Amino acid sequence: MILPRERCVELVSSGSELLDGRRLNTHARLLGGELERLGLRLVRDTTVPDDSAAMRETILSALQRVDLLFITGGLGPTSDDITREVVAEIASRKIVMHEPTREKNNEWLKRRNRTPNESFDRHALIVEGAAVLSNRAGLAPGERIELDGKTIVLLPGPPHELRAILDDHVIPWLRSCIGGDLPLCRSFRFCGTGESDIAMRLASAGFSEVGLEVAYCARPGDVELRLIASPSAREKFDQAIALVRKIFPSEIYSETAGEEIPLELVIGNLLREKKLTLATAESCTGGLIGHRITNVSGSSDYFRGGCVSYSNKIKIAQLGVAPETLAKFGAVSEAVAREMAEGVRRVFGADIGLSTTGIAGPTGGTAEKPVGLVFIAVADARGTVVREMRTGGEREYIKTVSAQSVFDLLRRRLCDLA
Amino acid sequence: MILPRERCVELVSSGSELLDGRRLNTHARLLGGELERLGLRLVRDTTVPDDSAAMRETILSALQRVDLLFITGGLGPTSDDITREVVAEIASRKIVMHEPTREKNNEWLKRRNRTPNESFDRHALIVEGAAVLSNRAGLAPGERIELDGKTIVLLPGPPHELRAILDDHVIPWLRSCIGGDLPLCRSFRFCGTGESDIAMRLASAGFSEVGLEVAYCARPGDVELRLIASPSAREKFDQAIALVRKIFPSEIYSETAGEEIPLELVIGNLLREKKLTLATAESCTGGLIGHRITNVSGSSDYFRGGCVSYSNKIKIAQLGVAPETLAKFGAVSEAVAREMAEGVRRVFGADIGLSTTGIAGPTGGTAEKPVGLVFIAVADARGTVVREMRTGGEREYIKTVSAQSVFDLLRRRLCDLA
Repeated sequence: MILPRERCVELVSSGSELLDGRRLNTHARLLGGELERLGLRLVRDTTVPDDSAAMRETILSALQRVDLLFITGGLGPTSDDITREVVAEIASRKIVMHEPTREKNNEWLKRRNRTPNESFDRHALIVEGAAVLSNRAGLAPGERIELDGKTIVLLPGPPHELRAILDDHVIPWLRSCIGGDLPLCRSFRFCGTGESDIAMRLASAGFSEVGLEVAYCARPGDVELRLIASPSAREKFDQAIALVRKIFPSEIYSETAGEEIPLELVIGNLLREKKLTLATAESCTGGLIGHRITNVSGSSDYFRGGCVSYSNKIKIAQLGVAPETLAKFGAVSEAVAREMAEGVRRVFGADIGLSTTGIAGPTGGTAEKPVGLVFIAVADARGTVVREMRTGGEREYIKTVSAQSVFDLLRRRLCDLA
Repeated sequence: MILPRERCVELVSSGSELLDGRRLNTHARLLGGELERLGLRLVRDTTVPDDSAAMRETILSALQRVDLLFITGGLGPTSDDITREVVAEIASRKIVMHEPTREKNNEWLKRRNRTPNESFDRHALIVEGAAVLSNRAGLAPGERIELDGKTIVLLPGPPHELRAILDDHVIPWLRSCIGGDLPLCRSFRFCGTGESDIAMRLASAGFSEVGLEVAYCARPGDVELRLIASPSAREKFDQAIALVRKIFPSEIYSETAGEEIPLELVIGNLLREKKLTLATAESCTGGLIGHRITNVSGSSDYFRGGCVSYSNKIKIAQLGVAPETLAKFGAVSEAVAREMAEGVRRVFGADIGLSTTGIAGPTGGTAEKPVGLVFIAVADARGTVVREMRTGGEREYIKTVSAQSVFDLLRRRLCDLA
């Protein structure tokens, strides 16, 4: 990856809580995704504790490599919030009070019947000469500091405050600096086709990576293939897209300009478009499928509900699975998956029923029915399709892959591909 | 923060997907938390793209500061997986095939009726002389490489694989290196009590932080209070623990030596101990509660199953909620939460029924019933308790806090605290 220096950006994430297990660092993903869409690239994120020597060294070293540096965290009122002090020292500037921010924060206190104090006022301290990036979601503003032809942007650590200042100030400012000429980006998502399988099939079809950036990202039951090209390589980019579509006509569940569309949203859109309703019968997934479907706002338009039938008794009483089927084939079987999907469709009065039954482990496996054996089914007015899956891994992994797979089976069924 | 060099550890997280918005870097939190419990400290995490020059520079620079370096990611089969090549070059070693891993991976393929290929075999390549850390959760093993008195540990990027190799190999190895003298660590977890509330109540009770490290970490519906002390401060540490227990007799849902025990496991243990069974009726949580209960291995011992009643029709037909109750109070009401919990308990033949009904948003709120209004209920042989909650935030946040809160209500009920 060789990029012109003006496209490269670094991030320094400060905060001891990011390094001792207490908190997840979400800054790099958020900032990285936004920069990517602007044709810029986050080339490094260095997470350091609240330690001024480590911060100083990291900042100086980053400024040797890039001209635009973001620093998150350490703008709060407590003694371990040291970012502005370290940056002021590097820039040989004073720390000054930003009166408009102090007044705004005092108003905030007043509304809560609390009195200002010195520690609280620290929120409004800035590096002298910085452009202040007001914070509608919190108390400490962001700051943009120009220093010897380089720019340092200071942003607060809480993710919703970071998000607000990015949207209000940073992205508009970057857009105005960049002008036109955004890069070409295409993201394809697959379920049930492995990373190496995709790479092999592309290679055999004569897919050439010359002039393109090609990246894969694998998650449980999910692979992303991303193509990026410069605006001048439009023809090459379009050819590559056409070839990918041709090789994988049924495997791709989403194609976007870079943003992520989860499979449950793809399915939700298909159900809404086709005016169909859905009900779920979950055994090994235990509720995960319903949870994911209902993460989509507006899912009540097509989702009737579901039954988590974690015991045979419930499969019989709530879903109408025949006791003889359970006795003859066992709960983890093609026949039971079929009856569960058909049962929930009937009982919940939905157009489509789906089901999962399997062995999520780590216990309960046998030689004949090992951990990771899962049957998934989709029942609709045309009949019922059932698939047998064999996967490995831990309990949550098996649940995740099972949910992904039954979503994909449903997608294929809705698109007449299964 | 001044620490002896032998306690300091660095991490290099490799993967362009961690910097372009595709994936969240969870490595630092996972590794940082584990190191903390061993008395070691993660002092830096540098995330770099799949770029050999940047990786080389970062690794060499880290090795100047610390003697133990972890590198995650880049051990997969594709052309952007370059970690082992970069490390081999730094160590002036060859890359060799690890035959036992290749055979294990080929078995894995065979079970899936797929044939090996050259790209797939790359999973089994290692740096010559490395100790192989077998990977029960995936295909590429970890590697431990000794180099000029320093140790480099290579680990795969997928979090469940990283977790497995940490548990199976890395933590036992670190324990054997460290010997005795682990720091004293105690973690208290709260649901429904805020961070600043805990701090205030501790301060009023005369809790002194002298000689202790005290850290808080707040997540949706969950606060951790962590106390750390050196082994020589045992008396002070024990006094602090006794005081915390005394101030919060009913609020603490778990007390551990640092590891996380999720609320669903606490509840599972209580249900098993008391030989009680559970069924769930979920509206706004959509399946999340069932999902979390069934993340606990062995939950089929006490979890009968549940109903995701995402429409009024299902609440009536499946749970026996009275149409008049729905008409009079609306689906999001104390009365409906009560009838849902009692209904699922009766219909599923369980000892305890629990329920959630609320407005997860972002749409569907009114002035009287705003987004974030949720009713939770627990019904058992002694009767039914219902609680009204008002929270803010986004859809997934509201679902998470609702699930936490009904779990905590159930915990209190099982412990005769509600």
